[in-house]
This record gives sequence, C-alpha cells and structure tokens, in this order.
Amino acid sequence: MTRRAENYAQWYNDLVIKADLAENSAVRGCMVIKPYGYAIWENMQHELDRMFKETGHQNACFPLFIPKSFFSREAEHVKGFAKECAIVTHYRLKNATDGSGVVVDPDAKLEEELIVRPTSETIIWHTYKNWIQSYRDLPVLCNQWANVVRWEMRTRLFLRTTEFLWQEGHTAHATENEAIEETLKMLDVYACFAENFMAMPVLKGVKSANERFAGAKDTFCIEALMQDGKALQAGTSHFLGQNFAKAFDVTFINKENKQEYVWATSWGVSTRLIGGLIMTHSDDNGLVLPPKLAPIQVVIVPVYKNTEQLAAVSEKVQSIVSKLKEKNISVKYDDSDNKKPGWKFSEYELKGVPVRLAIGARDLENGTIEIARRDTLTKETVSMENVDVRIADLLEDIQKNIYQKAYAFREESTREVNSYHEFKEEIEKGGFLLCHWDGTSETEELIKQETKATIRCIPFDGDKTPGKCMVTGKPSEQRVVFARSY
Amino acid sequence: MTRRAENYAQWYNDLVIKADLAENSAVRGCMVIKPYGYAIWENMQHELDRMFKETGHQNACFPLFIPKSFFSREAEHVKGFAKECAIVTHYRLKNATDGSGVVVDPDAKLEEELIVRPTSETIIWHTYKNWIQSYRDLPVLCNQWANVVRWEMRTRLFLRTTEFLWQEGHTAHATENEAIEETLKMLDVYACFAENFMAMPVLKGVKSANERFAGAKDTFCIEALMQDGKALQAGTSHFLGQNFAKAFDVTFINKENKQEYVWATSWGVSTRLIGGLIMTHSDDNGLVLPPKLAPIQVVIVPVYKNTEQLAAVSEKVQSIVSKLKEKNISVKYDDSDNKKPGWKFSEYELKGVPVRLAIGARDLENGTIEIARRDTLTKETVSMENVDVRIADLLEDIQKNIYQKAYAFREESTREVNSYHEFKEEIEKGGFLLCHWDGTSETEELIKQETKATIRCIPFDGDKTPGKCMVTGKPSEQRVVFARSY
Repeated sequence: MTRRAENYAQWYNDLVIKADLAENSAVRGCMVIKPYGYAIWENMQHELDRMFKETGHQNACFPLFIPKSFFSREAEHVKGFAKECAIVTHYRLKNATDGSGVVVDPDAKLEEELIVRPTSETIIWHTYKNWIQSYRDLPVLCNQWANVVRWEMRTRLFLRTTEFLWQEGHTAHATENEAIEETLKMLDVYACFAENFMAMPVLKGVKSANERFAGAKDTFCIEALMQDGKALQAGTSHFLGQNFAKAFDVTFINKENKQEYVWATSWGVSTRLIGGLIMTHSDDNGLVLPPKLAPIQVVIVPVYKNTEQLAAVSEKVQSIVSKLKEKNISVKYDDSDNKKPGWKFSEYELKGVPVRLAIGARDLENGTIEIARRDTLTKETVSMENVDVRIADLLEDIQKNIYQKAYAFREESTREVNSYHEFKEEIEKGGFLLCHWDGTSETEELIKQETKATIRCIPFDGDKTPGKCMVTGKPSEQRVVFARSY
Repeated sequence: MTRRAENYAQWYNDLVIKADLAENSAVRGCMVIKPYGYAIWENMQHELDRMFKETGHQNACFPLFIPKSFFSREAEHVKGFAKECAIVTHYRLKNATDGSGVVVDPDAKLEEELIVRPTSETIIWHTYKNWIQSYRDLPVLCNQWANVVRWEMRTRLFLRTTEFLWQEGHTAHATENEAIEETLKMLDVYACFAENFMAMPVLKGVKSANERFAGAKDTFCIEALMQDGKALQAGTSHFLGQNFAKAFDVTFINKENKQEYVWATSWGVSTRLIGGLIMTHSDDNGLVLPPKLAPIQVVIVPVYKNTEQLAAVSEKVQSIVSKLKEKNISVKYDDSDNKKPGWKFSEYELKGVPVRLAIGARDLENGTIEIARRDTLTKETVSMENVDVRIADLLEDIQKNIYQKAYAFREESTREVNSYHEFKEEIEKGGFLLCHWDGTSETEELIKQETKATIRCIPFDGDKTPGKCMVTGKPSEQRVVFARSY
C-alpha cells in the first residue's frame, strides 16, 4: 500500500480497495459498495436514523425520477444545479434486427424527459402542495434514505461518485423562525453524529453566497479537516425560505385565517462521510475505525500448534465471546485454518478492527490474553479475569483517543493569517486558515482562482473581532475559514 | 370508503389513500410512499434483514445503472425481461435558447445507453467475476436493499408500480447442491416471514416453465390468497444454475484444482408485500395490521370534559405508557385537543392500530380502562391492574387470530377440480384450484387464454397422487395450483 507521505490520494484509493470497502463498477463513476464498506454505512444509518426519529422526523419515499420541467420552476435552483445529470428519454428496448442484441426502441420516446434525481426538493415540494392546506398540517418533517445521481466528470470512491447514497430531510413549517430553528437543529444533529460517533471534529458555520446551495437562503455546514490538510464538507443543512413553496405554489391558511407560503428546510449527509471517516483516522497500516461505527469491534485470533491446542483455546474463547456479546460488543472469532496468525493480525489491522485479542496455549496455562489496540498499535498481555469489562472500557478509550488525536491535528493546522502574501504561502501547507474577508463574492472568487482555496464557512464559534480584508483592505465582520477542499 | 363487496379494486385503492399509506406521484406509475406506509416497510425490512443476516448474508450496494449490452449476454434473460425499462441516453441539460427552461443537451449523448436496473443479475455477476477466483472465495452471500424500475403500462399502488423498493439476494456457490440448498433456504425465510410476521399463510412451490424467471433453471415461490379470491405472488427464489456465470465468465478453481463455472441463486421480495398485507387482513372499516408489523401497536385516547379531567387522565396514562414501552410495545398517546374521541376511534380503526385504549374520568374512579381490539372490533372494560401484561397477551392473540382467519379463508377457498368444464365455472368464484395438468406449456397457455388463470405453483405439500390432465387427459404427476392472480 502506498504511504500517506508518498501520495495521499493514492494511499486513500489503495486503502479503500485493499480494505474491501468499495470498488469502481462497470458504469463510469458509479461504485460498488462492498459488504465491509456497506456495514459501516449501515452503522452510520442506524445512529442517524435514530437521531432523526428522536427529533420528530419520519421516513418516506419519493420518486427516483423528476419531470424535466420541474427543474425550471425554481430559477436559482436550475441555475446552480442539475445541469450534469442522468436523463431518461426512452422506456423500451427491442431486439436489434441484425441479432446483435438490444437497441433503444425509437417509438418509445417519452413526451417529457425524466431526470434521475440529483436531489429531491422539486418533486417533494410538488407533493407537499397536496399535503398542506392549513397550519394544522404543519410542520411536515420527512426524511428519505435514497440514491441520487450527479454526472460527475472526475470521481473518487466515496468522496465524489456519480451515484451515491444519502439521506435528504425535507421539512415544511408555518413560520420563518421555526424553519430556521429546524435548519440549525439538524446541523447540530450532524455535528453531534460526526463528533460522537465518527470521532471526527467539525466546525459549524454558514456558507458564503458562492458556496450556498442553489435555491437556498442560507446553507449551514459542518466542515472537517483531513490528514492532508484539505477540508471536507461533511454535511449541509439549508434554510430554503419560501423559494420552493413559491415555485410549487404551496400555501397554507394560518391561525389568523390568512393564506401564506410555507417555509422550508432541507438537509443531507451521504456516503461521502465514509471517505471522511477514512481520511480522518487511518494510517499507513490501514483503516482505523471508531469503535462506535466499526462493523467488527473485537477480533479474536487463536495461536496454536495442533488441533488439541485449538480446541482448548476455542473453548476458552467461547466464554469470552458470550460475555462480550452480552455487553453488545460485536466480536469475530477467526479460527480459519488456512491463514497464519501473523497474516490475520495484518488483515484486521488493515481493516481497522479497534481491538484484537490473541490467545495461545501458554495463555491458557497462565490465565492471560494478549490485547492489541489498533489506534496506538500497542499491545499488552493481561489477566483473563474481567477481560470483558476491560475491553468495554478500552473501546470507549479508543473512541475518545482518536477523536482527541484528530482534534489536536485540526487545532495545530488552524491558524490566523493576516496578509494575502502570507496566505498564499500558508495555503500550500494545508489546514484551516482564519482570515479577514470583505464579504464579497468577487474577492472570494479571486482568491479561489489564484490559490484554489475557498471559504469553507463563516464559523459560529471563535473570535468575532472585526478587521480588514486581507485582499482588499475593506472592512471585515469577522474571520472566516479558508481551505482547499475535497 | 368503497366496500369490498361493491368493488374490491376500488376498496383497495381508497384504503391505501385514506389510511395515508401511499399516493400516485407526478411521475407516471411511480408512487410516493407516505410516512405511515413507509413505517410498515421499515418494520418489514427490519425483520427480513435480521433473518438474512442470521442466515449468513451481508448487504452491499451495486450500481443503479446497467450498460445496455449486459442484457444481451444471457440469452433467456433478455428474451423474457427488461424490454420495458427506463433508458438513460444523455447526461446533461442546458438552458433553452428561448428562455423557456432547460432542454437535453444533444452533445451529451452517451456512447452506450444505460438501463435503470429492473433487477441486478447482470451487473452483479459482472462484478462477481473479479471477486471469485478460488473455492476459498465461495460462497458469496450478498443482498441489497434497492429501488428498481420496470416500465409497467398498468400500475396499482404497491402491487405494480414503475419504481418499487425491494431486496435482491445474489449468491454464488461452488456446487449445484449448495446453490439449490440456498434457494430453498431463502424460500423458507420468506415463508416464515409471511406467516409469522405478516400473518399471511402462503403455499410454497415451484413455478412452471411459463412462469419461471427469465434466466433461471427453477423459480420457487410463495403464493398467498387475497380476500377477493385472487392469488398474489409474494416472493420468489431462483436457482440460476451456471447461466449467469457462463454469460459473465465467472469461474473458480475448485478443491481438485480444476476450473469450473460458479453456481448462482437470486431471491427477492418487494413493497408489493404491503399490498398483500392490506388485502389479506383489512375490512370495510379500514386497515387491519398484524401487531408484529404495525407502526403503532397501541393507541390511547383520553375521554374528558375539561382540562382538569385531561390532566388526571394524562397522569395515569403516562404510567401505562412507561410500562408498555418497557415491554417494547410501541404506543401512541393521542391527546390532541382539536378532535373528539369518536373521530379518533374511527381514525385509528382506519389505520389498523391493533389495540385501542380509552380512559375517562369514570375509569379513574373505578380503576378501569376500555380495551378495543381492531381485528374483531370488540371492546371490554377491564381493571387497570396489570393492563400491560394483558395487552402484551392480547397483541399475541391478535397476531394468531388474524393468521387463523386468513388460513381458514384460504382453506375454504382451495378445492380440487377434476374437469375443465367444472374449472371454468369454479375459477369465476376465485380461490386456489387443485387440478391435474399434463406438464406442457401449451396446455397452460390454453387455460390462461380461455380463463385468465395461471399455474401459481406446483406445490411442495399436499396430495402427490398422479392423475390425468383436466384438459388433455394426458398423464399428470400431481395436482398443481391454478388461480387468477395480481
């Protein structure tokens, strides 16, 4: 496997392939998510779905296809979006006359083309029109887990693929305040998930106009810093104002018996999070997974010379497995006989299993067991007594440790920069740069052209002292976060 | 709502709409699954997914799109399938020159068209080629939860829609026997799910050649009988032989170091199951849901004259809610103040909530509570003591009762028919007809043309006595099940 210092992009790609997470498919830009990668996604879904439901949301399912004309209804939406997408024009194949296979039947042309959803605001707001008449029908708090398609020219496994999996929440509210509250509530859910489950520290903030979702009044985001110093937008939550309600004529009778347009939000995270997870924690030996999302939290490898020893070890292991399962710890006992322990050690290191136990004949005599932790690559031999309690504690410790490590990295990679000259030097080193900016799209665009850096967010936390734009010298309300990004 | 006796099809459609399960969307043939309908699907998924994992399967995700040429690779597959499907021909929109919106960019035409998957055998077996080299790589036991598209001309909510949700299992094996075993194992999983969770009795059997999946060696199925006497194919499990392995050149080195083609199975159930669930149990008052899949198992409605009474009732209810939640019973307390109790009673009846509790001021005095069960529409007033235990028992009782009711209906609707003359009369009354058939496609086709009935399956259980075909008089190995179907 390529080392990070050698070529970070290649290291990432090698790791995704070798750890059996995903691979490219026969369809340009579309990936196959392999079982081990999908198990991480399932764990993410499980926690997020629980959090969505705890905040009052319900799941639903809207069509995969969107009539082409819907995209023209919200002017900003179509301007900023949806040009690069998969377009269905026909609905039937027929046998080729020369027997060479099948061809598109020209007689089966659709009157109006259908777009494979790149996001679902339009079809959902068209639907909501029939769901909402009175303030008593509000709020509508729906989420869907779905696949979406954006025809990307340059793709990278998990980070940017033509088809990807995501969830998209779409909510409808009676008042502007309630919609803004919802937007920020879901941003908090994302931040909480990223930090407490992915062990990935994130900055919360609002996007500049240039980086705003097409059709949104405001886009809020969580931004994470990868090990190579590039930023990753990990989740977004949009306050849509009444834009989509107006475009799709969704009104309601309010408590004062007056007709009003409905207020909207949308918010989403995707399989891109798996890319973020990999790039936050993993090392040159392979994946490092946070215990709370690892498909296998503990692997047990027997060390033996003959079948009698294996039988004795296996018997002991069974009681450990039971105890761990009682504690809801997912555990795999790998007693496959066609691989040596050393091979297994490397394999589970590559796959990022947080804790590895090894047990051999001598351990049985001594009542000991070897515990190795993936995050620090350290191991120790300990008494078998209460090993389940020790492991439960260890998993918590690993979860905390990798968060702290990532947090420390971000903190040391975040610095204030006060001149554009300094900025051009510093941006080459990566990291988050806190700079004053005059608030204009022109200045942001200039910086992007010259340095490939963009404003990741105007952060909620941190120093709010006004200053002067590093480029134009014009007044700046507060420092904003610049970085190069994925 | 239309009554069943009046117009069964209309009753079904009314019920799906009024119970807020699903509705038609802006896209022809595609439905919107509303939160209440989707919650039933989530409960189905949860149980099925657990059963798949307990039988050793893992989830994965394969592309939504399939290159057109893949369909021509397996000759029988393309013959019997995939002609009516959504075809992606372009990948970019552009602004219309007249400012009227967006048009398809003719410069963005795909070299090879992509088909939105109607089923994924082809793309998956293309993928498996790289996963499988040796017998040590086998079996591959993958499932995916996905949306698929089949361009249906006549659609009905849940039963037949252009886009639908399903799971598709695709497994690869070293031997024919192991693949057949897998096919039958998954058929058993489906039957177990249908009977124990959906409370829907099913016949297990094998399809005749006419009804076999395109590309399969054998298609096994579970068939259920709806209240109108029509059959519903509720799930299929296919033994694919080496057909797809040969089409996509998937070979492995066996234990004897010889190269062999891999053996395959595929199996699936879809959101169609929700249609089956509705038509098995529901009545003229609305849905009847089996407790094991009901999104809300128990609803509690307060009966009160003033806010003091409501406060007193609510306090009592909270302790009941806690006790029920401890027993993992999902419960909703509907204390909304803009609807009368009578309105709520009808609403939850319509929505098929298995158990309804009502509690008023007099109940508080007497220490009683009213329990109503949805399946029998009966109610009784009982002591509040141990009401949680009573409800847990009642839910089990309802689950059993609706199964038995459906089973009794199927048994009385299943009869032996010995002449084609009798068959033509009997088929008008609906139900499963057990008849002798000469085993030929021609005879089956004739019967279908003349009576609209098809062979639902050659059943595993029941009378195996040979006889003579009711149409041709030729020898018949055993009676098979005929019915009209959805």
